[in-house]
Amino acid sequence: MMHIGSLEAGPRGTIADVAGVTAGHCTLAQGAVQTGVTVIRPHDGDLYRDKVPAAACVLNGFGKSVGLVQVDELGVIETPIALTNTFGVGTVANAQIRAAVAANPRIGREEPSVNPLVFECNDGYLNDMQALAIHEAHYRSALDACSVDVERGAAGAGRGMSCFELKGGIGSASRVARIGEHAFTAGALVLANFGRLPQLTIAGEAIGRTLHVKNEAPNKPEQGSIIMLIATDAPLDARQLRRLAMRAAAGLARTGSVYGHGSGDIALAFTTAYTVRHDADFITMPPLINDARLDPLFQAAADSIEQAILDALYSAETVAGRDGHRRISLKDALRT
Amino acid sequence: MMHIGSLEAGPRGTIADVAGVTAGHCTLAQGAVQTGVTVIRPHDGDLYRDKVPAAACVLNGFGKSVGLVQVDELGVIETPIALTNTFGVGTVANAQIRAAVAANPRIGREEPSVNPLVFECNDGYLNDMQALAIHEAHYRSALDACSVDVERGAAGAGRGMSCFELKGGIGSASRVARIGEHAFTAGALVLANFGRLPQLTIAGEAIGRTLHVKNEAPNKPEQGSIIMLIATDAPLDARQLRRLAMRAAAGLARTGSVYGHGSGDIALAFTTAYTVRHDADFITMPPLINDARLDPLFQAAADSIEQAILDALYSAETVAGRDGHRRISLKDALRT
Amino acid sequence: MMHIGSLEAGPRGTIADVAGVTAGHCTLAQGAVQTGVTVIRPHDGDLYRDKVPAAACVLNGFGKSVGLVQVDELGVIETPIALTNTFGVGTVANAQIRAAVAANPRIGREEPSVNPLVFECNDGYLNDMQALAIHEAHYRSALDACSVDVERGAAGAGRGMSCFELKGGIGSASRVARIGEHAFTAGALVLANFGRLPQLTIAGEAIGRTLHVKNEAPNKPEQGSIIMLIATDAPLDARQLRRLAMRAAAGLARTGSVYGHGSGDIALAFTTAYTVRHDADFITMPPLINDARLDPLFQAAADSIEQAILDALYSAETVAGRDGHRRISLKDALRT
Amino acid sequence: MMHIGSLEAGPRGTIADVAGVTAGHCTLAQGAVQTGVTVIRPHDGDLYRDKVPAAACVLNGFGKSVGLVQVDELGVIETPIALTNTFGVGTVANAQIRAAVAANPRIGREEPSVNPLVFECNDGYLNDMQALAIHEAHYRSALDACSVDVERGAAGAGRGMSCFELKGGIGSASRVARIGEHAFTAGALVLANFGRLPQLTIAGEAIGRTLHVKNEAPNKPEQGSIIMLIATDAPLDARQLRRLAMRAAAGLARTGSVYGHGSGDIALAFTTAYTVRHDADFITMPPLINDARLDPLFQAAADSIEQAILDALYSAETVAGRDGHRRISLKDALRT
Repeated sequence: MMHIGSLEAGPRGTIADVAGVTAGHCTLAQGAVQTGVTVIRPHDGDLYRDKVPAAACVLNGFGKSVGLVQVDELGVIETPIALTNTFGVGTVANAQIRAAVAANPRIGREEPSVNPLVFECNDGYLNDMQALAIHEAHYRSALDACSVDVERGAAGAGRGMSCFELKGGIGSASRVARIGEHAFTAGALVLANFGRLPQLTIAGEAIGRTLHVKNEAPNKPEQGSIIMLIATDAPLDARQLRRLAMRAAAGLARTGSVYGHGSGDIALAFTTAYTVRHDADFITMPPLINDARLDPLFQAAADSIEQAILDALYSAETVAGRDGHRRISLKDALRT
Repeated sequence: MMHIGSLEAGPRGTIADVAGVTAGHCTLAQGAVQTGVTVIRPHDGDLYRDKVPAAACVLNGFGKSVGLVQVDELGVIETPIALTNTFGVGTVANAQIRAAVAANPRIGREEPSVNPLVFECNDGYLNDMQALAIHEAHYRSALDACSVDVERGAAGAGRGMSCFELKGGIGSASRVARIGEHAFTAGALVLANFGRLPQLTIAGEAIGRTLHVKNEAPNKPEQGSIIMLIATDAPLDARQLRRLAMRAAAGLARTGSVYGHGSGDIALAFTTAYTVRHDADFITMPPLINDARLDPLFQAAADSIEQAILDALYSAETVAGRDGHRRISLKDALRT
Repeated sequence: MMHIGSLEAGPRGTIADVAGVTAGHCTLAQGAVQTGVTVIRPHDGDLYRDKVPAAACVLNGFGKSVGLVQVDELGVIETPIALTNTFGVGTVANAQIRAAVAANPRIGREEPSVNPLVFECNDGYLNDMQALAIHEAHYRSALDACSVDVERGAAGAGRGMSCFELKGGIGSASRVARIGEHAFTAGALVLANFGRLPQLTIAGEAIGRTLHVKNEAPNKPEQGSIIMLIATDAPLDARQLRRLAMRAAAGLARTGSVYGHGSGDIALAFTTAYTVRHDADFITMPPLINDARLDPLFQAAADSIEQAILDALYSAETVAGRDGHRRISLKDALRT
Repeated sequence: MMHIGSLEAGPRGTIADVAGVTAGHCTLAQGAVQTGVTVIRPHDGDLYRDKVPAAACVLNGFGKSVGLVQVDELGVIETPIALTNTFGVGTVANAQIRAAVAANPRIGREEPSVNPLVFECNDGYLNDMQALAIHEAHYRSALDACSVDVERGAAGAGRGMSCFELKGGIGSASRVARIGEHAFTAGALVLANFGRLPQLTIAGEAIGRTLHVKNEAPNKPEQGSIIMLIATDAPLDARQLRRLAMRAAAGLARTGSVYGHGSGDIALAFTTAYTVRHDADFITMPPLINDARLDPLFQAAADSIEQAILDALYSAETVAGRDGHRRISLKDALRT
């Protein structure tokens, strides 16, 4: 797989290059059920007590995520980030509530509540979504599996996803941005489930027009989505993180997407540079990067998102799912 | 209860004055479980097939609603509107998905998905939210109960809600706006669960400062919320409906609210003047009201929201809930 | 004039209670020309070099302000804030550019540019706007006049403004918010030019319905606007300042406004607690108030805005303008 | 110049392929003054009386445009669209007001006001912006010059602009989108003034890294901007036009932009399919395209924006400006 752009990657080449960030999967792959849950932990502590600054950018809002209203208002996340299929959102949100209450029994009583944060893509081409196969235990299992070794491809929430009518799923990448004498890392993790084959562009080459893949219904409109997470260790506030999240639009576009109508294209950026203590009177922040110095980080965000999408395509295996539906992997498609 | 403003109410004085709109409740009231589900149906057809133009306005985003990302993007709702407690959102969303799939088995297969729309307030003072007492059947039960006779007070999602440290819950009202020779109706329904007692203002009078109510923890910060729905038969598009929803901020403020930090204050407006067919190539709309003529409707929205909040207070009965917690009704408070 | 709410005012009872903030006017009042410029300085240094954190909230966007796109993106202001009539905006923006370039000759050359910030209301009822009477010198004159003695009423940009079909203009007020052991000040300054007489509500009393004022065209739709500035010494970031600005909606609503269609209702909040150095690599911020502690400041913002609007009404004198148009002051209207 | 994407262009290959749309320039090119004004007319009638549905999308808000607050609220434009340099905005806005008042003498008197719409980029590298060389007459001159023969390159507002450290300016392109049996046109016109040379990507090829251009200060941060206009004859409302405008982000990204911090990247889309009569009680709209059918138009918007940016680069001539500054054209750069 080609290296995108001129910035270097971190040592792992995944979102886990941002110190403290881990990810884990729970994968369901049996017959018509091809789906799962993926969890990303910004740090390994209690996120409800030590909230993480974050902001989202909705590029195209055909999406059913949970939690963005409060992230917009308060600029923090207070649970791990969960990814799953469209019909699993409610159940995973319930699991997040239950986990937060178990760790903080005052929630919903002396303390008001907790804001679940669940993103989704529609894996209904391969997965029998109507089976509502996601259970709360799957969230806990993905949470327990979190580590710095981030599996990519047809894993977790990525199990049943399609991308450019090929097999999609989880991808990850990282880039190092140098600002003055400082080096900051941007790490991306995507759940890639968007795009029509003729749009597919790899490192500038419109390769999708040359690939021949037999698909059931080649002229169906896009029903995809992509969730794009950007972690960074750069000290930014929520307003600046929203700016960073917006740069995912550039990385995504370079792969051929025009943010199709039926695609829920959502980016979320968070920083590990400081946390917001739940019950502190004041929020103490490190010196933040002046906006005028942010360009290298913007480039890192765009490049790592593009690389992470390619990583999803290159990491995925061919998967067969419901009703004889099948998504061939990019590697297999290039072979034929 | 005083009549707010100089516009007249519709014949029922509820949201059901907008022809076609109905509402129903499922109420759970046993010991520490004091909660429920309320459903509002914009019309009695299949909302997925005949979508209803709508737009929301988040006044303060300390809220955990489901569905607003897509409403913002597409300007329609495609399920009934559900209200419940904060921890019931995921389950009610699941119920909405299941109901939509039952009626339209192509959803999640040939057709992409459906956007659940669930709003919540935190009823944790009276209700044992940690019990997660809301089940999917409660949504269906509230849906089945929908009628033009809208019960108000401590019913449905309103069962456990508090408002100005008094008993809150469901309130409704309507106003008729005359624009040129036409008369349009604005109907409001609120789930009122916000405010500190000293803020309470009724028809301009700061009555809250004079009321003496024994509450457990009078100095606790607000943990409330208010959901404000505005139905209208006026022909408007989503942009205009967002303008209408914003006027809820005026009605709410007049009752004493300053949109407290911990309050999820969200307004949603929808029109019954036309629908958007799911699979039509074109959307045919009636002539829309010119924005320059909207002032009477803005006034109707603000007035009916204020009236609906008062209606919630006046309709509610005193309720006892978990751990000896008790919310006295406004009527009882005025009596002492 | 009644004291609004239960929070106390600062010693001056104006926006100048926030240390460092000054305001000044240039008033044009000759025949059909009844207009002017008002300038508010967040501090007396060079705002381009020491930018001030700020955020705006557009309640109703029928307005022609200059500068909000960049304030939204970057969360700072870098010129004094200017108020004038609708047709004066371009000229005042030019004057701001010229003043910034004079102080910083690198602007537009080695350094990119400067973001003018000009708000407006439509004073066309009293003032002959078509005369385009505002010149650049009027901006400089208002800037030079800035002091802690803030004149209110029919001064500066307020000269030709109408409010509730009475004489409007400049109003100001302040409130002290206690958060834990700390006391923070919120100071409001408004340019009030909105509302129909029957809506006028003073401290909860719908007094507008009882006043009899002879106006030329009592049934004309509102063509007003209100600009609401909130200064504070509380340490907040741009996201939090946007939350503060939103509370202006509550203060405004309590005076009877429903944010009429033709009214550009815009609030802007800024803090004097720290500045953002133009060329610093990092932004050093004091510890910020935790959002969960903000309620007293929200109350202070709403109350000081309501008080400032009343202050504009009570401070104004009756003014006669173009074509025999005349706006009677509230004091004169109450007398008859 | 390569043809971008697989959709065909309209007959002219410019924004004028959307029937009724014209554009004109006034160019100032003398010594250190290298700047101008460009005007785009959505139709040749009176825009104040027959307003044009429109919506904008701010990708990065480091910009000083005038008029977007009201476009956001009301979804229409009521003047021609003007482009100029950053310091010319106020003057051009004044010219727009004067022109509107001349045609409609009730504006600012019986009728409230008019919303100028002026976009800008910073041409300060070539042009002596501090000279404030733009006068009101230049706007009128550009307006008078409007025709379907759209000059591109270093003309009008594009005269002093830089793009990827090469000569930028005005570019235009069009694409035909087939939706069912209908063909709709999307026409783009850009004012391109953004990007660092190493980012430049032409039709997927990272050509910027291979070009050697001697520039004064190759490591300076970007101080650019791009204004992207999309005209269409497809029947859409303001909400849908905002979706269309957002697709400019994809076209822009493909040329190498990551929406740099110092770049005001703003897109505006408008439709010629119907107008909104100023004083009508109702807005009559043709049947609108169902959102689910919009993908071809989204592709057309992205492709025509990318093509228009390349057109700006290929159309521009090398220009010398203030203080010996010089921007070499792409054609000249490719030759060396």
